[in-house]
Amino acid sequence: MNAAPKIMRRIEMLAKISDEPGKITRTFASPGMRRANELTAQWMREAGMTTRGDAAGNLIGRLACGKPKAKTLLLGSHLDTVCDAGKFDGTLGVVLAIACLENLQQQNIKLPFAIEVIGFSDEEGVRFQTAFLGSKALAGSFDRRDLKRKDLAGISMADAIKNFGGNPAQLKSARLDPGKLLGYVEAHIEQGPVLERENSAVGIVTGIAGQTRARLGFSGRAGHAGTVPMSLRRDALCAAAEFVLAVENLARRTDGLVATVGQVSVQPGASNVIPGEADLTLDLRHPSDSVRQRAQGQLERTAVRIAARRGLKLNPETLSETAAVACSKELSAQLALSVGRFQKKIPQLPSGAGHDAAILAGITPVAMLFVRCKGGISHHPDESVKTEDVQVAFHVLNDFILRLAQAHEHI
Amino acid sequence: MNAAPKIMRRIEMLAKISDEPGKITRTFASPGMRRANELTAQWMREAGMTTRGDAAGNLIGRLACGKPKAKTLLLGSHLDTVCDAGKFDGTLGVVLAIACLENLQQQNIKLPFAIEVIGFSDEEGVRFQTAFLGSKALAGSFDRRDLKRKDLAGISMADAIKNFGGNPAQLKSARLDPGKLLGYVEAHIEQGPVLERENSAVGIVTGIAGQTRARLGFSGRAGHAGTVPMSLRRDALCAAAEFVLAVENLARRTDGLVATVGQVSVQPGASNVIPGEADLTLDLRHPSDSVRQRAQGQLERTAVRIAARRGLKLNPETLSETAAVACSKELSAQLALSVGRFQKKIPQLPSGAGHDAAILAGITPVAMLFVRCKGGISHHPDESVKTEDVQVAFHVLNDFILRLAQAHEHI
Repeated sequence: MNAAPKIMRRIEMLAKISDEPGKITRTFASPGMRRANELTAQWMREAGMTTRGDAAGNLIGRLACGKPKAKTLLLGSHLDTVCDAGKFDGTLGVVLAIACLENLQQQNIKLPFAIEVIGFSDEEGVRFQTAFLGSKALAGSFDRRDLKRKDLAGISMADAIKNFGGNPAQLKSARLDPGKLLGYVEAHIEQGPVLERENSAVGIVTGIAGQTRARLGFSGRAGHAGTVPMSLRRDALCAAAEFVLAVENLARRTDGLVATVGQVSVQPGASNVIPGEADLTLDLRHPSDSVRQRAQGQLERTAVRIAARRGLKLNPETLSETAAVACSKELSAQLALSVGRFQKKIPQLPSGAGHDAAILAGITPVAMLFVRCKGGISHHPDESVKTEDVQVAFHVLNDFILRLAQAHEHI
Repeated sequence: MNAAPKIMRRIEMLAKISDEPGKITRTFASPGMRRANELTAQWMREAGMTTRGDAAGNLIGRLACGKPKAKTLLLGSHLDTVCDAGKFDGTLGVVLAIACLENLQQQNIKLPFAIEVIGFSDEEGVRFQTAFLGSKALAGSFDRRDLKRKDLAGISMADAIKNFGGNPAQLKSARLDPGKLLGYVEAHIEQGPVLERENSAVGIVTGIAGQTRARLGFSGRAGHAGTVPMSLRRDALCAAAEFVLAVENLARRTDGLVATVGQVSVQPGASNVIPGEADLTLDLRHPSDSVRQRAQGQLERTAVRIAARRGLKLNPETLSETAAVACSKELSAQLALSVGRFQKKIPQLPSGAGHDAAILAGITPVAMLFVRCKGGISHHPDESVKTEDVQVAFHVLNDFILRLAQAHEHI
């Protein structure tokens, strides 16, 4: 079945649904999200699913199974986006899963398990500055204190959920019963350049990297750029520059580590004033928590040494730490067998970005299929995926579902 | 004569005259400048001078000399300030000169030359983003195109001058006749830490450094901090960091060179995005123009190498170049003799900051006396000068005037 053109058309249709004219922006529980959910629910129903919205704004389409005690395989991804997003991040995984169910329906295939396709309501965390609201509700790890958070318009998360048709008082009702789940499989664009370099349409995600977010401030002494001799300076930016290069150097030498200083701000920040303060962010990610934590420790000691040598004060602050999540070896092995049927290589790669799969891993085995995207560009209107790669992903996910069905028939 | 306490009191009085309540801010041709000029003119008249405001808003007090063909020695500094300024920058030089003339009057000393004490109207360039308006008018180097510049309130410089009582149509009338001048001597706080380190109240300025202001932009490729492996990154901030350290390193190795990266801005500037763009400023100063220009060339080549090695684009832009100005050897030698009478060392140091003296050097020999300030801090409310250092400066300037008078009597 040549499913990709229809998938691409649907992705284009969703791309036209936005909170911001001329851009793709759909944030949690927004008018754009409502229209995206309505359109997607219609496609789900056309593919034979029953649909519902849960207490946390997730859209769930269910293909029931006649068998008693049948478990449920979860598929899907998120329908929210960043501001001025690309078309494929999230959307692809939802539309692809629906296409697979449509195929089952057309071929009149009955499965020994139910399938639920989920359009998660908040993976990006744009509106309330906290991500994974939808998947956290399903996994039972939603933090109710977040309900008090307010968006830029001053609307609380509780009110936003209520207005959207969810139920902030009943978030627990959204929780899935782990005993009834087979697992969760998410297809998603890679958002990186590895598959492009590997010349492969799709790849298997080994795990989702853990992440440390930190902030470091160097405090020196501002001064007149013309009158303070070099030997008497305590230039905070020079210290920050040393640190930026130390971060890059360590990550280059540490297999699998990615480390980024994405923000630097300098005070007073005038061309003719020696920087007295330099603040920077640090983002560290690695599939192994111990490697990441060791790297963080090493970089903090480096920062201390730089500050001491230059007579500066250092103020380091860890903002958040997220543990790595391993994908299920069993599900991933099945997925790899399916990949092997449709392309030569079976690339295995970690995900440096977070995904709803990492949250659902708390209650069920998860696997992820990455789809090549052009130049690794994501979170940008230039995000681009080839139709033929989508077709490969469709074949793989379809084959995987049938493979799982076969294994279950044999049990 | 113990002049310093009165000088300090007058500096405190001027510090209370401001365009911004609670701060010291007096910009070109502002209400604060008008009141500062009125108060200062009153002190000038008390010291026996006649006073006038010129077409460019400068305040000039004149102590005439009975002799025919007598030349004029210029003294003074500026009465405008930066925003939220210190008390001493500029003000000290004007009030100190008035104190010297008051002393001449009290001692009934007649000089073989006239003296004019000038309170320059614009050294800092805050209001119209262009500095030295007052001294440029006196030196005949005022650029009339600047008259069209507007301040933040939309008022043109021409109107500002008019409202202040100056005459934008007659700026040429402000020009001093070089043939009638003996020279210009300016006392000013050091705005740097050298005299403090030398344990000296005052020092002789050898020259005013030339300055290059440049901007450099590195363009790489933004990307997801979690998904782009280190080997595939083109991180613009890492390139900027290398450049910042190259700047510091070259300046440390080059005697007398000061080099500063005071601003860095990064795009997109999010903690989880690899910097695609990094822009920075470069400020280079040296008393020798050739050393400064050589350093600029060297740093530009370094930037090109960094960009090439990292696969980035480089966009360098020279914003302005100001040539170095040498102080008059003759006047400085006389000033040094006077310094030697009142303190052990005679520190000689270049000025990294610009001064009205650099502009007047276009029409007459100039010399400068730097006065120690606490921690080298300037352009800040914490600016601080000791009363005993002001007393030394008073003795030196007084002695210098008498020394010059003696030399002239002998001619």
